[in-house]
Amino acid sequence: MTEIRVKTSKRVEAVNITEHITKMVESGQGTLVHIYTPHTTCGITINEEADPDVMRDIIDAFERIVPANHPYRHGEGNSDAHIKATLAGSSVTVPYIKGKPALGTWQGIFLMEFDGPRERKVIITLI
Amino acid sequence: MTEIRVKTSKRVEAVNITEHITKMVESGQGTLVHIYTPHTTCGITINEEADPDVMRDIIDAFERIVPANHPYRHGEGNSDAHIKATLAGSSVTVPYIKGKPALGTWQGIFLMEFDGPRERKVIITLI
Amino acid sequence: MTEIRVKTSKRVEAVNITEHITKMVESGQGTLVHIYTPHTTCGITINEEADPDVMRDIIDAFERIVPANHPYRHGEGNSDAHIKATLAGSSVTVPYIKGKPALGTWQGIFLMEFDGPRERKVIITLI
Repeated sequence: MTEIRVKTSKRVEAVNITEHITKMVESGQGTLVHIYTPHTTCGITINEEADPDVMRDIIDAFERIVPANHPYRHGEGNSDAHIKATLAGSSVTVPYIKGKPALGTWQGIFLMEFDGPRERKVIITLI
Repeated sequence: MTEIRVKTSKRVEAVNITEHITKMVESGQGTLVHIYTPHTTCGITINEEADPDVMRDIIDAFERIVPANHPYRHGEGNSDAHIKATLAGSSVTVPYIKGKPALGTWQGIFLMEFDGPRERKVIITLI
Repeated sequence: MTEIRVKTSKRVEAVNITEHITKMVESGQGTLVHIYTPHTTCGITINEEADPDVMRDIIDAFERIVPANHPYRHGEGNSDAHIKATLAGSSVTVPYIKGKPALGTWQGIFLMEFDGPRERKVIITLI
């Protein structure tokens, strides 16, 4: 189990963290890697890393689905970020084979920041 | 592996089940805990437990994203609950360290009821 | 760890893959089965398999939440499929007991195709 820190630079953005996971499983023995963020206003997802516009489209769609401006109950002004975190999910689990994550050709692993900029923790566990 | 029962009291609501998971991992040995619900109209999510308004905002947002009133095909009148269950997901997996789930300061684990009130099963597995 | 191939026949559709998972865990020893797709325009979900209209309602709802027609940035015309894949998630994990997945009475495991028709890979791992 390893904890890494990810710095985000905007309120909403997707940060590619694939390299951290790839490095960790290189020396690991097992079959699955679990990537988890212990926060309530960001999420973890897997999607295309080749064209950065894909994650931008995803971030924008989340904003349309859950607008930041709405008369939410929670008084901290970041309810939309909490809702988006539940839609994205707080972890992903990926198989790995011979020290390499079984990611598809286009797949990358992303931290989805919905209430930044902040420093975020990501906990990586090998199974 | 342990199965618990969770009683829900409304059609839609979030029930905090963190305490059950915390108790179970206290005596467990391993690195991850998997929390699963074998139903198709509720889900499991991780989000803020400090202010109950956060989960209320999330439940309300799910209702706006997937209205209960829509000419759905499925004849049982609970299609919105099925759709919300897929958006939320049927399980979460959380690391645990020295008998404690590695939840962040604000994180709790919730059963999201979308078609209650009912008694729901939750299966907790240590890895 | 086993890889199966799933052929999809439409642009968007849900394909029931439960039987493949059931067969694989029959001979397996462990407590959890992880079902993963290494693609960025399809997802894996658990929902009702008894009435096929449930998954049709879910697929239709995803289309309303994330319309195919929108001025997305990504130039390949399938941004909606990428967004839907992140909403659905790329994997599910299910407990299994004595060679049977602990699926509820109504639950089935589905590949959600959002940019077909194609042949899709699904990687099944026993824990």
